[in-house]
Amino acid sequence: MNGKSDIEKALVVLSGGQDSTTCLYWALDRYGTHGVESVTFDYGQRHRTELACAATVAKIAGVTNRCLPIDTFAALGGDALTDPEVEVASDVDDSTGLPNTFVPGRNLIFLTYAAAYAYQRGIRHLVTGVAQTDYSGYPDCREETINALQTALRLGMESEITIHTPLMHLSKKETVELARDLGALPAMAFTHTCYNGQRPPCGTCPACLLRAKGFAEAGVADPLLAAP
Amino acid sequence: MNGKSDIEKALVVLSGGQDSTTCLYWALDRYGTHGVESVTFDYGQRHRTELACAATVAKIAGVTNRCLPIDTFAALGGDALTDPEVEVASDVDDSTGLPNTFVPGRNLIFLTYAAAYAYQRGIRHLVTGVAQTDYSGYPDCREETINALQTALRLGMESEITIHTPLMHLSKKETVELARDLGALPAMAFTHTCYNGQRPPCGTCPACLLRAKGFAEAGVADPLLAAP
Repeated sequence: MNGKSDIEKALVVLSGGQDSTTCLYWALDRYGTHGVESVTFDYGQRHRTELACAATVAKIAGVTNRCLPIDTFAALGGDALTDPEVEVASDVDDSTGLPNTFVPGRNLIFLTYAAAYAYQRGIRHLVTGVAQTDYSGYPDCREETINALQTALRLGMESEITIHTPLMHLSKKETVELARDLGALPAMAFTHTCYNGQRPPCGTCPACLLRAKGFAEAGVADPLLAAP
Repeated sequence: MNGKSDIEKALVVLSGGQDSTTCLYWALDRYGTHGVESVTFDYGQRHRTELACAATVAKIAGVTNRCLPIDTFAALGGDALTDPEVEVASDVDDSTGLPNTFVPGRNLIFLTYAAAYAYQRGIRHLVTGVAQTDYSGYPDCREETINALQTALRLGMESEITIHTPLMHLSKKETVELARDLGALPAMAFTHTCYNGQRPPCGTCPACLLRAKGFAEAGVADPLLAAP
Protein backbone atom coordinates (compact mmCIF):
# COMPACT_ATOMS: atom_id res chain seq x y z
CA MET A 1 0.00 0.00 0.00
CA ASN A 2 2.72 2.49 0.90
CA GLY A 3 4.75 1.65 -2.19
CA LYS A 4 8.16 3.20 -1.77
CA SER A 5 9.69 3.86 -5.13
CA ASP A 6 13.16 4.81 -6.25
CA ILE A 7 11.79 6.15 -9.51
CA GLU A 8 10.65 9.77 -9.30
CA LYS A 9 7.02 9.99 -10.22
CA ALA A 10 4.51 12.81 -10.20
CA LEU A 11 0.77 13.02 -9.64
CA VAL A 12 -0.96 15.90 -11.43
CA VAL A 13 -4.22 17.33 -10.08
CA LEU A 14 -6.09 17.53 -13.37
CA SER A 15 -9.31 19.54 -13.43
CA GLY A 16 -9.79 19.41 -17.16
CA GLY A 17 -9.01 23.11 -17.48
CA GLN A 18 -6.29 25.07 -19.22
CA ASP A 19 -3.96 25.47 -16.24
CA SER A 20 -3.93 21.88 -15.02
CA THR A 21 -3.50 20.66 -18.60
CA THR A 22 -0.45 22.89 -18.93
CA CYS A 23 0.83 21.40 -15.66
CA LEU A 24 0.30 17.89 -17.00
CA TYR A 25 2.58 18.65 -19.93
CA TRP A 26 5.08 20.31 -17.57
CA ALA A 27 5.15 17.04 -15.60
CA LEU A 28 5.49 14.93 -18.76
CA ASP A 29 8.46 17.04 -19.79
CA ARG A 30 10.08 16.51 -16.40
CA TYR A 31 9.14 12.94 -15.43
CA GLY A 32 8.32 11.28 -18.76
CA THR A 33 5.11 9.52 -19.77
CA HIS A 34 5.75 6.57 -17.46
CA GLY A 35 6.49 8.90 -14.55
CA VAL A 36 3.16 10.73 -14.53
CA GLU A 37 -0.33 9.91 -13.25
CA SER A 38 -3.32 12.20 -12.85
CA VAL A 39 -6.18 12.55 -10.40
CA THR A 40 -9.47 14.39 -10.89
CA PHE A 41 -12.08 15.23 -8.29
CA ASP A 42 -15.79 14.79 -8.85
CA TYR A 43 -17.09 17.20 -6.22
CA GLY A 44 -20.50 17.76 -7.73
CA GLN A 45 -19.39 20.63 -9.95
CA ARG A 46 -22.21 22.07 -12.04
CA HIS A 47 -20.21 21.80 -15.26
CA ARG A 48 -19.84 18.02 -15.29
CA THR A 49 -18.15 18.26 -18.66
CA GLU A 50 -14.93 19.04 -16.74
CA LEU A 51 -14.65 15.38 -15.76
CA ALA A 52 -14.89 14.16 -19.35
CA CYS A 53 -12.41 16.85 -20.39
CA ALA A 54 -9.91 15.66 -17.76
CA ALA A 55 -10.27 12.05 -18.92
CA THR A 56 -9.82 13.06 -22.56
CA VAL A 57 -6.79 15.23 -21.87
CA ALA A 58 -5.18 12.42 -19.83
CA LYS A 59 -5.83 9.98 -22.65
CA ILE A 60 -4.27 12.29 -25.22
CA ALA A 61 -1.25 12.72 -22.94
CA GLY A 62 -1.02 8.96 -22.39
CA VAL A 63 -1.34 9.00 -18.59
CA THR A 64 -3.77 7.31 -16.21
CA ASN A 65 -6.59 9.37 -14.72
CA ARG A 66 -8.21 8.41 -11.44
CA CYS A 67 -11.47 10.18 -10.61
CA LEU A 68 -12.15 10.46 -6.87
CA PRO A 69 -15.59 11.46 -5.56
CA ILE A 70 -16.04 14.26 -3.01
CA ASP A 71 -19.59 14.60 -1.73
CA THR A 72 -18.74 16.84 1.20
CA PHE A 73 -18.70 20.19 -0.63
CA ALA A 74 -22.24 19.68 -1.86
CA ALA A 75 -23.31 18.86 1.71
CA LEU A 76 -21.63 22.06 2.93
CA GLY A 77 -23.50 23.85 0.15
CA GLY A 78 -23.83 27.53 -0.42
CA ASP A 79 -21.46 28.16 -3.31
CA ALA A 80 -22.09 28.78 -6.93
CA LEU A 81 -19.90 25.99 -8.30
CA THR A 82 -21.77 23.15 -6.61
CA ASP A 83 -25.11 24.58 -5.48
CA PRO A 84 -27.69 24.80 -8.28
CA GLU A 85 -29.58 27.40 -6.21
CA VAL A 86 -26.72 29.89 -6.33
CA GLU A 87 -26.14 31.98 -9.46
CA VAL A 88 -22.61 32.55 -10.71
CA ALA A 89 -21.82 36.24 -10.31
CA SER A 90 -18.94 38.00 -11.96
CA ASP A 91 -18.57 40.30 -8.99
CA VAL A 92 -17.18 39.47 -5.60
CA ASP A 93 -19.39 38.87 -2.60
CA ASP A 94 -19.52 42.16 -0.69
CA SER A 95 -19.49 40.46 2.69
CA THR A 96 -16.36 38.37 2.10
CA GLY A 97 -14.47 40.17 -0.66
CA LEU A 98 -14.23 36.80 -2.41
CA PRO A 99 -15.87 35.53 -5.60
CA ASN A 100 -19.08 33.66 -4.81
CA THR A 101 -17.56 30.57 -6.42
CA PHE A 102 -15.37 30.25 -3.33
CA VAL A 103 -15.53 27.00 -1.35
CA PRO A 104 -13.53 27.66 1.81
CA GLY A 105 -10.38 25.57 1.72
CA ARG A 106 -11.23 23.78 -1.51
CA ASN A 107 -7.65 23.55 -2.71
CA LEU A 108 -6.47 22.41 0.71
CA ILE A 109 -8.89 19.49 0.46
CA PHE A 110 -7.94 18.66 -3.13
CA LEU A 111 -4.24 18.65 -2.34
CA THR A 112 -4.64 16.64 0.87
CA TYR A 113 -6.61 13.94 -0.96
CA ALA A 114 -4.09 14.03 -3.80
CA ALA A 115 -1.29 13.59 -1.25
CA ALA A 116 -3.10 10.62 0.34
CA TYR A 117 -3.54 9.01 -3.07
CA ALA A 118 0.09 9.74 -3.98
CA TYR A 119 1.17 8.17 -0.67
CA GLN A 120 -0.68 5.00 -1.57
CA ARG A 121 0.89 4.99 -5.05
CA GLY A 122 4.42 5.60 -3.78
CA ILE A 123 4.54 8.99 -5.53
CA ARG A 124 6.18 11.94 -3.83
CA HIS A 125 5.67 14.79 -6.29
CA LEU A 126 2.34 16.60 -6.61
CA VAL A 127 1.72 19.10 -9.39
CA THR A 128 -1.08 21.66 -9.25
CA GLY A 129 -2.01 24.55 -11.51
CA VAL A 130 -2.74 27.14 -8.83
CA ALA A 131 -1.43 30.64 -9.54
CA GLN A 132 -1.36 33.69 -7.38
CA THR A 133 -0.86 36.12 -10.26
CA ASP A 134 -4.44 35.90 -11.42
CA TYR A 135 -5.66 34.26 -8.31
CA SER A 136 -9.10 35.89 -8.30
CA GLY A 137 -9.02 36.34 -4.56
CA TYR A 138 -8.66 32.68 -3.66
CA PRO A 139 -6.37 32.63 -0.63
CA ASP A 140 -5.83 28.88 -0.92
CA CYS A 141 -3.99 29.37 -4.24
CA ARG A 142 -1.20 31.52 -2.81
CA GLU A 143 2.35 30.29 -2.50
CA GLU A 144 2.41 30.98 1.23
CA THR A 145 -0.67 28.77 1.73
CA ILE A 146 0.70 25.95 -0.44
CA ASN A 147 3.99 26.02 1.46
CA ALA A 148 2.19 25.81 4.81
CA LEU A 149 0.06 22.93 3.55
CA GLN A 150 3.14 21.10 2.30
CA THR A 151 4.58 21.33 5.81
CA ALA A 152 1.34 19.98 7.32
CA LEU A 153 1.21 17.12 4.78
CA ARG A 154 4.83 16.13 5.36
CA LEU A 155 4.32 16.04 9.11
CA GLY A 156 0.85 14.50 9.00
CA MET A 157 1.74 11.72 6.58
CA GLU A 158 5.41 11.37 7.49
CA SER A 159 6.18 11.65 3.80
CA GLU A 160 8.59 13.59 1.63
CA ILE A 161 5.82 14.99 -0.53
CA THR A 162 6.65 18.06 -2.60
CA ILE A 163 3.97 20.27 -4.12
CA HIS A 164 5.03 21.77 -7.44
CA THR A 165 3.23 24.88 -8.70
CA PRO A 166 4.78 25.66 -12.09
CA LEU A 167 2.24 28.42 -12.85
CA MET A 168 2.40 30.17 -9.48
CA HIS A 169 4.04 33.35 -10.71
CA LEU A 170 3.06 33.28 -14.37
CA SER A 171 0.55 35.57 -15.99
CA LYS A 172 -2.11 33.98 -18.20
CA LYS A 173 -0.05 35.13 -21.20
CA GLU A 174 3.02 33.33 -19.88
CA THR A 175 0.97 30.21 -19.12
CA VAL A 176 -0.20 30.11 -22.75
CA GLU A 177 3.41 30.52 -23.92
CA LEU A 178 4.50 27.68 -21.61
CA ALA A 179 1.70 25.44 -22.92
CA ARG A 180 2.81 26.18 -26.49
CA ASP A 181 6.48 25.48 -25.69
CA LEU A 182 5.58 22.18 -23.96
CA GLY A 183 3.49 20.95 -26.89
CA ALA A 184 0.27 21.17 -24.89
CA LEU A 185 -1.75 23.12 -27.45
CA PRO A 186 -3.39 20.12 -29.20
CA ALA A 187 -4.77 18.97 -25.84
CA MET A 188 -6.09 22.50 -25.17
CA ALA A 189 -8.89 21.87 -27.67
CA PHE A 190 -10.37 19.42 -25.16
CA THR A 191 -10.08 21.55 -22.03
CA HIS A 192 -12.88 23.32 -20.26
CA THR A 193 -12.86 26.82 -18.80
CA CYS A 194 -16.33 28.40 -19.08
CA TYR A 195 -17.99 29.02 -15.70
CA ASN A 196 -21.35 28.61 -17.39
CA GLY A 197 -20.45 25.14 -18.65
CA GLN A 198 -21.02 25.99 -22.30
CA ARG A 199 -19.28 24.38 -25.27
CA PRO A 200 -18.41 26.34 -27.33
CA PRO A 201 -17.66 28.60 -24.36
CA CYS A 202 -19.98 31.52 -23.56
CA GLY A 203 -17.14 34.00 -24.01
CA THR A 204 -18.55 36.43 -21.49
CA CYS A 205 -18.03 34.87 -18.03
CA PRO A 206 -14.93 35.91 -16.04
CA ALA A 207 -13.19 32.59 -16.77
CA CYS A 208 -13.74 32.85 -20.54
CA LEU A 209 -12.57 36.47 -20.57
CA LEU A 210 -9.39 35.64 -18.63
CA ARG A 211 -8.60 32.75 -20.96
CA ALA A 212 -9.20 34.83 -24.09
CA LYS A 213 -6.97 37.63 -22.74
CA GLY A 214 -4.10 35.18 -22.13
CA PHE A 215 -4.25 33.68 -25.61
CA ALA A 216 -4.59 37.11 -27.22
CA GLU A 217 -1.62 38.54 -25.35
CA ALA A 218 0.50 35.51 -26.25
CA GLY A 219 -0.52 35.83 -29.88
CA VAL A 220 -1.72 32.21 -29.94
CA ALA A 221 -5.04 31.00 -31.36
CA ASP A 222 -7.02 29.11 -28.71
CA PRO A 223 -7.49 25.56 -30.07
CA LEU A 224 -10.74 25.31 -28.09
CA LEU A 225 -12.37 27.95 -30.30
CA ALA A 226 -11.34 26.05 -33.43
CA ALA A 227 -12.68 22.76 -32.03
CA PRO A 228 -15.66 21.15 -33.76
CA MET B 1 -22.66 32.86 4.67
CA ASN B 2 -19.40 34.09 6.16
CA GLY B 3 -21.08 35.19 9.37
CA LYS B 4 -18.66 37.27 11.37
CA SER B 5 -19.51 37.04 15.01
CA ASP B 6 -18.40 38.96 18.06
CA ILE B 7 -19.48 36.10 20.31
CA GLU B 8 -16.81 33.47 20.80
CA LYS B 9 -18.13 30.13 19.66
CA ALA B 10 -16.54 26.72 19.27
CA LEU B 11 -17.11 23.81 16.92
CA VAL B 12 -16.23 20.41 18.36
CA VAL B 13 -15.24 17.54 16.06
CA LEU B 14 -17.35 14.83 17.68
CA SER B 15 -16.63 11.23 16.69
CA GLY B 16 -18.86 9.66 19.31
CA GLY B 17 -15.86 8.35 21.20
CA GLN B 18 -14.46 8.98 24.65
CA ASP B 19 -11.93 11.65 23.72
CA SER B 20 -14.14 13.85 21.57
CA THR B 21 -16.92 13.62 24.18
CA THR B 22 -14.48 14.85 26.80
CA CYS B 23 -13.58 17.69 24.43
CA LEU B 24 -17.25 18.55 24.01
CA TYR B 25 -17.58 19.04 27.77
CA TRP B 26 -14.31 21.00 27.82
CA ALA B 27 -15.86 23.34 25.23
CA LEU B 28 -19.14 23.60 27.15
CA ASP B 29 -17.19 24.60 30.23
CA ARG B 30 -15.36 27.30 28.28
CA TYR B 31 -17.97 28.63 25.84
CA GLY B 32 -21.29 27.66 27.43
CA THR B 33 -24.12 25.63 25.90
CA HIS B 34 -25.07 28.39 23.47
CA GLY B 35 -21.45 28.80 22.39
CA VAL B 36 -20.88 25.23 21.22
CA GLU B 37 -21.80 23.27 18.10
CA SER B 38 -20.58 19.87 16.97
CA VAL B 39 -19.79 18.21 13.66
CA THR B 40 -19.47 14.50 12.91
CA PHE B 41 -18.11 12.85 9.77
CA ASP B 42 -19.76 9.90 8.11
CA TYR B 43 -16.80 8.54 6.17
CA GLY B 44 -18.09 5.01 5.73
CA GLN B 45 -16.66 3.74 9.00
CA ARG B 46 -17.38 0.07 9.62
CA HIS B 47 -18.77 0.74 13.07
CA ARG B 48 -21.72 2.88 12.03
CA THR B 49 -22.86 3.00 15.64
CA GLU B 50 -20.33 5.84 16.12
CA LEU B 51 -22.67 8.21 14.26
CA ALA B 52 -25.61 7.42 16.53
CA CYS B 53 -23.34 7.75 19.56
CA ALA B 54 -22.22 11.21 18.44
CA ALA B 55 -25.82 12.32 17.93
CA THR B 56 -26.83 10.97 21.35
CA VAL B 57 -23.90 12.56 23.15
CA ALA B 58 -24.63 15.92 21.47
CA LYS B 59 -28.28 15.67 22.50
CA ILE B 60 -27.34 14.92 26.11
CA ALA B 61 -24.97 17.88 26.08
CA GLY B 62 -27.63 20.13 24.52
CA VAL B 63 -25.67 21.12 21.40
CA THR B 64 -26.41 20.80 17.70
CA ASN B 65 -24.74 18.02 15.73
CA ARG B 66 -24.21 18.29 11.99
CA CYS B 67 -23.24 15.07 10.23
CA LEU B 68 -21.22 15.62 7.06
CA PRO B 69 -20.65 12.81 4.54
CA ILE B 70 -17.18 11.91 3.26
CA ASP B 71 -17.20 9.31 0.49
CA THR B 72 -13.60 9.87 -0.60
CA PHE B 73 -11.88 7.63 1.96
CA ALA B 74 -13.90 4.63 0.87
CA ALA B 75 -12.96 5.39 -2.75
CA LEU B 76 -9.31 5.56 -1.76
CA GLY B 77 -9.84 2.24 0.00
CA GLY B 78 -7.30 -0.06 1.48
CA ASP B 79 -7.64 0.60 5.18
CA ALA B 80 -9.24 -1.43 7.90
CA LEU B 81 -11.63 1.23 9.20
CA THR B 82 -13.50 1.66 5.94
CA ASP B 83 -12.68 -1.34 3.77
CA PRO B 84 -14.68 -4.46 4.66
CA GLU B 85 -12.03 -6.57 2.92
CA VAL B 86 -9.30 -5.53 5.35
CA GLU B 87 -9.12 -7.16 8.81
CA VAL B 88 -8.39 -5.01 11.85
CA ALA B 89 -4.99 -6.04 13.18
CA SER B 90 -3.68 -5.10 16.59
CA ASP B 91 -0.14 -5.02 15.23
CA VAL B 92 1.38 -2.37 13.07
CA ASP B 93 1.89 -2.84 9.36
CA ASP B 94 5.50 -3.92 8.91
CA SER B 95 5.94 -1.93 5.73
CA THR B 96 4.79 1.40 7.15
CA GLY B 97 5.30 1.11 10.91
CA LEU B 98 1.72 2.40 11.26
CA PRO B 99 -1.42 0.66 12.46
CA ASN B 100 -3.40 -0.73 9.52
CA THR B 101 -6.32 1.47 10.56
CA PHE B 102 -4.35 4.43 9.22
CA VAL B 103 -5.94 6.58 6.52
CA PRO B 104 -3.19 8.91 5.31
CA GLY B 105 -4.06 12.43 6.35
CA ARG B 106 -7.43 11.56 7.83
CA ASN B 107 -7.27 14.15 10.58
CA LEU B 108 -6.05 16.80 8.15
CA ILE B 109 -9.18 16.22 6.10
CA PHE B 110 -11.50 16.20 9.12
CA LEU B 111 -10.07 19.44 10.47
CA THR B 112 -10.09 21.17 7.08
CA TYR B 113 -13.76 20.32 6.56
CA ALA B 114 -14.51 21.36 10.14
CA ALA B 115 -12.74 24.66 9.49
CA ALA B 116 -14.77 25.20 6.29
CA TYR B 117 -18.00 24.52 8.19
CA ALA B 118 -16.90 26.76 11.06
CA TYR B 119 -16.11 29.51 8.53
CA GLN B 120 -19.64 29.30 7.18
CA ARG B 121 -21.06 29.41 10.72
CA GLY B 122 -18.93 32.37 11.79
CA ILE B 123 -17.12 30.22 14.38
CA ARG B 124 -13.40 30.63 14.91
CA HIS B 125 -12.57 27.99 17.51
CA LEU B 126 -12.20 24.31 16.60
CA VAL B 127 -11.84 21.64 19.27
CA THR B 128 -10.47 18.17 18.53
CA GLY B 129 -9.61 15.26 20.77
CA VAL B 130 -6.32 14.28 19.18
CA ALA B 131 -3.54 13.37 21.60
CA GLN B 132 0.07 12.63 20.96
CA THR B 133 0.62 10.86 24.28
CA ASP B 134 -1.16 7.69 23.22
CA TYR B 135 -1.13 8.57 19.59
CA SER B 136 -0.72 5.01 18.31
CA GLY B 137 1.66 6.10 15.59
CA TYR B 138 -0.74 8.51 13.88
CA PRO B 139 1.46 11.37 12.70
CA ASP B 140 -1.55 13.56 11.95
CA CYS B 141 -2.42 13.69 15.68
CA ARG B 142 0.82 15.32 16.79
CA GLU B 143 0.97 18.91 17.99
CA GLU B 144 3.52 19.85 15.35
CA THR B 145 1.16 18.64 12.59
CA ILE B 146 -1.86 20.42 14.07
CA ASN B 147 0.09 23.66 14.36
CA ALA B 148 1.21 23.42 10.72
CA LEU B 149 -2.34 22.73 9.61
CA GLN B 150 -3.63 25.70 11.60
CA THR B 151 -1.19 27.91 9.70
CA ALA B 152 -2.36 26.48 6.37
CA LEU B 153 -6.03 26.94 7.31
CA ARG B 154 -5.52 30.53 8.46
CA LEU B 155 -3.75 31.41 5.23
CA GLY B 156 -5.99 29.34 2.97
CA MET B 157 -9.26 30.64 4.40
CA GLU B 158 -8.06 34.05 5.52
CA SER B 159 -9.57 33.31 8.88
CA GLU B 160 -8.52 33.56 12.50
CA ILE B 161 -9.32 29.93 13.18
CA THR B 162 -7.72 28.39 16.27
CA ILE B 163 -7.49 24.62 16.75
CA HIS B 164 -7.76 23.62 20.40
CA THR B 165 -6.43 20.23 21.47
CA PRO B 166 -7.19 19.95 25.19
CA LEU B 167 -6.07 16.31 25.37
CA MET B 168 -2.83 16.69 23.41
CA HIS B 169 -0.47 16.02 26.31
CA LEU B 170 -2.76 14.06 28.62
CA SER B 171 -2.48 10.35 29.34
CA LYS B 172 -5.65 8.27 29.09
CA LYS B 173 -5.77 8.35 32.90
CA GLU B 174 -5.67 12.15 32.90
CA THR B 175 -8.32 12.29 30.17
CA VAL B 176 -10.66 10.20 32.33
CA GLU B 177 -9.97 12.51 35.30
CA LEU B 178 -10.72 15.54 33.12
CA ALA B 179 -13.97 13.97 31.91
CA ARG B 180 -14.98 13.30 35.52
CA ASP B 181 -14.12 16.86 36.60
CA LEU B 182 -16.08 18.36 33.69
CA GLY B 183 -19.19 16.29 34.42
CA ALA B 184 -18.84 14.27 31.24
CA LEU B 185 -19.19 10.83 32.81
CA PRO B 186 -22.97 10.42 32.30
CA ALA B 187 -22.48 11.00 28.56
CA MET B 188 -19.64 8.42 28.53
CA ALA B 189 -22.25 5.65 28.78
CA PHE B 190 -23.26 6.53 25.20
CA THR B 191 -19.82 6.74 23.65
CA HIS B 192 -18.22 4.20 21.38
CA THR B 193 -14.63 2.98 21.42
CA CYS B 194 -14.44 -0.69 20.32
CA TYR B 195 -12.59 -1.19 17.03
CA ASN B 196 -14.74 -4.26 16.43
CA GLY B 197 -17.94 -2.23 16.72
CA GLN B 198 -19.37 -4.32 19.54
CA ARG B 199 -21.75 -3.12 22.23
CA PRO B 200 -21.05 -4.09 24.99
CA PRO B 201 -17.46 -3.61 23.81
CA CYS B 202 -15.32 -6.64 22.94
CA GLY B 203 -12.80 -5.75 25.63
CA THR B 204 -9.89 -7.25 23.72
CA CYS B 205 -9.16 -4.90 20.79
CA PRO B 206 -6.44 -2.24 21.23
CA ALA B 207 -9.01 0.55 21.62
CA CYS B 208 -10.96 -1.29 24.34
CA LEU B 209 -7.76 -2.16 26.20
CA LEU B 210 -6.51 1.44 26.09
CA ARG B 211 -9.85 2.74 27.36
CA ALA B 212 -10.01 0.18 30.18
CA LYS B 213 -6.47 1.04 31.25
CA GLY B 214 -7.31 4.75 31.49
CA PHE B 215 -10.42 4.22 33.60
CA ALA B 216 -8.62 1.70 35.83
CA GLU B 217 -5.67 4.01 36.44
CA ALA B 218 -8.00 6.91 37.23
CA GLY B 219 -9.97 4.71 39.63
CA VAL B 220 -13.22 5.53 37.82
CA ALA B 221 -15.85 2.98 36.76
CA ASP B 222 -16.48 3.21 33.02
CA PRO B 223 -20.17 4.17 32.62
CA LEU B 224 -20.20 2.34 29.27
CA LEU B 225 -19.70 -1.01 31.01
CA ALA B 226 -22.62 -0.30 33.35
CA ALA B 227 -24.90 0.73 30.46
CA PRO B 228 -27.85 -1.49 29.64
